[in-house]
Order: sequence, then structure tokens, then C-alpha cells
Amino acid sequence: MRTQVAIIGAGPSGLLLSQLLHLKGIDCVVLEQRSPDYVLSRIRAGVLEQGMVHMLEQAGVSGRMHKEGLPHDGFTISVGDTRLRIDLKGLTGGSNVMVYGQTEVTRDLMDAHTARGAKVIYEAANVQPHDFDTASPRVTYQKDGVTHEIACDFICGCDGYHGVSRASVPQGAITEYEKVYPFGWLGILSYVKPVDHELIYSNHARGFALASMRSHTLSRYYIQVPLSDKAEAWSDQAIWDELKIRLGEEAAAKMETGPSIEKSIAPLRSFVAEPLRFGRMMLAGDAGHIVPPTGAKGLNLAASDIHYLSEALIEFYGEKSEAGIDDYSRKALARIWKAERFSWWMTSLLHQFPELGPFNARMQLADMDYLAHSHAAQVSLAENYVGLPF
Amino acid sequence: MRTQVAIIGAGPSGLLLSQLLHLKGIDCVVLEQRSPDYVLSRIRAGVLEQGMVHMLEQAGVSGRMHKEGLPHDGFTISVGDTRLRIDLKGLTGGSNVMVYGQTEVTRDLMDAHTARGAKVIYEAANVQPHDFDTASPRVTYQKDGVTHEIACDFICGCDGYHGVSRASVPQGAITEYEKVYPFGWLGILSYVKPVDHELIYSNHARGFALASMRSHTLSRYYIQVPLSDKAEAWSDQAIWDELKIRLGEEAAAKMETGPSIEKSIAPLRSFVAEPLRFGRMMLAGDAGHIVPPTGAKGLNLAASDIHYLSEALIEFYGEKSEAGIDDYSRKALARIWKAERFSWWMTSLLHQFPELGPFNARMQLADMDYLAHSHAAQVSLAENYVGLPF
Repeated sequence: MRTQVAIIGAGPSGLLLSQLLHLKGIDCVVLEQRSPDYVLSRIRAGVLEQGMVHMLEQAGVSGRMHKEGLPHDGFTISVGDTRLRIDLKGLTGGSNVMVYGQTEVTRDLMDAHTARGAKVIYEAANVQPHDFDTASPRVTYQKDGVTHEIACDFICGCDGYHGVSRASVPQGAITEYEKVYPFGWLGILSYVKPVDHELIYSNHARGFALASMRSHTLSRYYIQVPLSDKAEAWSDQAIWDELKIRLGEEAAAKMETGPSIEKSIAPLRSFVAEPLRFGRMMLAGDAGHIVPPTGAKGLNLAASDIHYLSEALIEFYGEKSEAGIDDYSRKALARIWKAERFSWWMTSLLHQFPELGPFNARMQLADMDYLAHSHAAQVSLAENYVGLPF
Repeated sequence: MRTQVAIIGAGPSGLLLSQLLHLKGIDCVVLEQRSPDYVLSRIRAGVLEQGMVHMLEQAGVSGRMHKEGLPHDGFTISVGDTRLRIDLKGLTGGSNVMVYGQTEVTRDLMDAHTARGAKVIYEAANVQPHDFDTASPRVTYQKDGVTHEIACDFICGCDGYHGVSRASVPQGAITEYEKVYPFGWLGILSYVKPVDHELIYSNHARGFALASMRSHTLSRYYIQVPLSDKAEAWSDQAIWDELKIRLGEEAAAKMETGPSIEKSIAPLRSFVAEPLRFGRMMLAGDAGHIVPPTGAKGLNLAASDIHYLSEALIEFYGEKSEAGIDDYSRKALARIWKAERFSWWMTSLLHQFPELGPFNARMQLADMDYLAHSHAAQVSLAENYVGLPF
């Protein structure tokens, strides 16, 4: 088989890229080692930046999002005794974010691919990129016991942190930067009404808590826990009790509780691989970088990679120019590092770090006090939260 | 002897307080263990915030400052390959800073005290505050072998980090927060023309450097060095050579060099004591807190303490109200912690911290890249640099 662009990974990055390229008449094949149901079962982020919303519109997959998604014009942040609403819309001159689950974004993209009979090969085993340091790269995989090969112009690695794409790069060609945080997020999903119409981020003496949502009837809550904790050791009741303490009395009084339909602990990590291009293979999304979830930048950063990458590929085929491809890594990384900075800062502000000592704890309070009294600091937070320009 | 306010320490804090109280008819005595010449020989900061400039005007000691001081409307900051001028005046809507040495501020205050025959007792040995937990505090000291006692209403501890005032507070009554940085600043003072008309802060791969000045003919330079270094092991030539590397080619080409008239290494420390009031004794300036010198907040923070403290004492004597005294510590500390935050942030951005690893180094570059492209981030830096409102 031959295609123009072979895409490894059918998560939101890979499918969004495939969709955007298809609209410009560029032929793609998407390879995914898992089944569609497995891909949809991964519970992930749910806050979309304006730039990503525009990309989904551009990709023709924004209909349901605009019907079911919840535009949020602000959120609340609470550190120590200081509680502050960040008026995203007012501070940024009209921008906001869209609450719409990653699962829903993926489903909409899947439906669009099905509708146009796009080439998405699920349950492709042993996917392997080859010869991406030449002008004739190939991808091999096995399906139903048969080995297949796809010849292509480019390979796009959209296969996540544990994917084969980055792992195929020779060791000396890549530099990895990493920071691991000494705690995780215990998350639960439950069919209860959200405690507030906006998100609440709280840094309580007992640790971070976040009241989030996927819809008017589906709530998503998180609490900071030691990495040694096991999700199954936390009863639903214990999680609700802890949330009520950490989110404060006002939230506790209004909080609806119910059985969890998902409960898991995710570690927090900052990670960046440089560069993101290796000859004819480019990495995008989690394959190239991870942010801690505070501030919800992970999915949005994948979308911004796809923005730069799709533009570069469209330029390549439309104008026979490699300039965009040559510049992809630099452009994408400039935005990635700023999002890494923001996610790290928001994580630093909102979690308990007892190992960093009492001076650091007071720096958090000072940071919050400054934020509460400085318009410039609030604008800075807001412009990062709604997403820096591409 | 009896006075209304006994002030321990004749540095800029103590003398500014004495001057402001005198103008409202409040009687003060200032006790200083050193000689006037020793006090003036201490080479310290030289960048005054607008709020401090106004206080010196209010105190009637701003004449020479306005003649000889250099108003600076901006400064340059350089991290990695990114160089950026911070337009203080434009970003803050008209504010700037005044370059005028701490030594000169102290001299002007001394002259004003001499002119009015104020009670400043130099070379007072064994100064000791007593009974500040009662309504009748006392200070004892020895002079020329004779023990003296001053009865007073209040004791103001303006005697620096190593002073007797904070040391006299019972241990359980005070909480101390501290952060020590793993490097120092090697500073030199030299009668050469400054390399630029504004300050240049640089984070070079070899470490921090600062090109500062005291006047058009007196330059002050600093470089980050390991704490194990000895100032005397650095020849003047070695310092100039290092500065030329760290400040970049453009500065190197213009840099005038000459013999140093002062050369020393200062450690960098963040420190805050809470509270700042203990009955009838209040701490101000370095007696209560230290900032690393990056951003020049130390002297200015002492001035803001004196602002709150003088207002509280004037209110006490003028309106027979203790409300200001009761609120002094809270008010002063709210501003102190924000200045601690800013000084810590500017120190974090501008120094090499190899022990924090490569991810942290990239966070510095990302912070700088964000700063270079965000108006809000620049406004935030500028409003802190010119000084947050009292």
C-alpha cells in the first residue's frame, strides 16, 4: 500500500491531522494498535482552548461540540484563605474555553472518518516506522497474522508517550527533559450535577482538589494523593468527604455525591523531547511531550502541534516547499515550552509540597496574594489558560 | 533619659523613621553601635522605587538625590539568546526608578540629623531592649564606659539581620522562614563610565551578571560565583574578563575597565520573620527580612516598612489610637511577601542552578520567551520592579 502521510495513532492528534489533511486532498492512512472502543474508553482532559475549538470547526467536526459543549468564561482558584474568580472573558478581551470531553472529540473525529470511509486501521499489531531518514519512509504492521507495509512520504508519530514512534529514534538524536512530581491525581467520574457552573481549583492544606465536569450531569473531580496510594483503597465516600474538606464549605454544602463510574490515579509529569522532527518522521502530542494536568494543556498542546504540522504538510504538497517541515519542530516547541512553563507554574501554585519546606509554602501564598491584587498577573494567567496564540 | 520612640540602628531605616517622626513633633533617640564612617562605608543597593523617592521628599532629604540621582525609565534583561528591554515607564503608565546609592541616602539623612541637632548616639555599646511586653519599655546601652538607660513608649528595631532587636524576642514568639541560594554575588565598584545608561541583567551559561552603576562615573558590577570562592582570589582583570563574556559582545565592546575600589562576595538569602511587632517593639528592614539582591528590593522594602511604621506611630500620637500599631505587622508583611516572591522569581530566572537539572534550565528559557512575547508578563515585571503600591 502507498499513501502520502502515514499516521501512527488514532487518538485525537492522529485523527485531527488525518481530517485536516484529507480536506486538502492529501492522502493519509491512520494505524492504531488498539480497538475503537479501547481508544474511547480512555478518560482524559475536557477543557478546550479557543484555538482547538477553531481547529475542530475547520476540520468540520464541531457540530456536536457547539451543541453539547459548555463554554466557560471563567474559573475559580483558591489558595489558603484567598479565593479568586478569573474572568477569562473580561481579562482576555473576549476569549473563553470549551468544556467538552476528549472522549467526545475523539468520537466526533471517528464518526467523520467513518462517514467518509477514511483509511483507519485499528488493532494493527507491531506497528513500526522505517527509513524515515530517507525520502522513502515505510511503516510495517501486522493485522490478522499478515504483515503489511505502507510506503509513504512522511510518518507522523501521534502515538503517545509510550508509542513506537519516539522509541524508534536513534538515542543520540533526541534529548529528553523531564520533571516528575511527588504526587498523583486521584480522579473520579460520576453522574452527578457539577458543584458549580465553572471549575474550582483549590490548594488546601490537605492538598490540591479540582471540581471539574464533562456536562451538566457528569462531574469530574480530582484530589492530590501520594503516589503510594491505590485508587481501589479509596472508597467513593472517602473521596467525597475529602473533596468537601478541600473545596471548602460553600462547595461542600452544594455538592451532589453518587457512585463513581471511573476512579484512577494518574502521576504528574513534565516531559519534552527535542527535536520533534527526524528526517521524514514528525512527532506530535504526547509522543513528544507531557504536561501535568493542572491547567488542562495536554490535549490543547497536541492540537497546536497538529496545527503547525498540518500547515507544514499542506505547504509541502501545495507549494512544493519543505520550509514548513523544516520549521515544524522549532515552531511547535516554542509553544510547547511556554505551555510546559504554565502547567508547571499552575502545578507549583496549587499543590502541597511539604518536602520543599515552609518558605516555599509561603511563596505560594504570596503568589496568590499578588495574583489577587494585580490585573497584569490575572491577564497573564488568563491568556495562558485560554491558550497563547499559535 | 526619656523619649517617645527609641530607634535601634542608624542605617537608612532608622534615620528615615527618626526624620519622619521628627517632622510630626515626635521625639526620638537613635542608637547605633558603629561610627558614622563605618555606617557610610557599607556598600549596598542603589536603585530606589518611586515610593521611596516620595518618602525621601516627604522627609525633606531629597534635594541632592534629585540633583545627582539618575532616573531610569527601563532596564535590559537577557536570558540565553533572548535580550529584552523592559520599558518601565511605558509599561507602568509613567513610573520609573531612581539610581542613587544607599550610602548617599544615608549621608543625606545623617546631614539632616546633624543640621537639626537630632539625638543620634553613635558607638553605643551593648544596646539592649527591655520590657517591650509592657507599656514602659526601656533601652540600655554603654557609652564611654558608662551605662545609660532610655525610657520610651516604643522601641523600633532597625538594626539589621544580625541586630539585637530580633534576637531579644523570646524564641516561641517568632517564626522564621528562610531560603539560602547555592551561590553568591561577587561585586566590584570602580570609577569607570557605566557600560550602558541603564542596568543590564544577564543570565549567561557561565552564570548571572549585572551591570549597574551609582553615577555617570561610578560603576557597580556583579557576577554569580560559587559560595566557596574568595573575593581576593579574583583579580580585577579576571572579573572584567568574566563580565565581558557574561554581558555579551555588545557590552564587552563598550566596557570601560579600571581598578576596583571595593570587591566582595555577598551570599544570597531569602528570609522573613513573623510577626514584626512584639508588644511595644516593632522590627523594620533587614531586622525582619532579607531578599536576594536581584531586583534591588532590600532597601526599598525597608522604606516601605518605615512608611507603615511611621504612619502607625503618627496615628498613635496624633489620634491616641493603637489601630495602626496593631495592624503594622500584617500590613508590612503583606507587601514584604510579595517582594520576597518577586526577588525569588527574578533570582530564579537570572541565575544558573545546575543542581536543579536540565528541565529547570529550560523553564528559565521558556519563562524568558514568554516574557518577551507577553505584554501582561512585562507589565507584571515592571510593576514589581518600580514597586507595588504601599
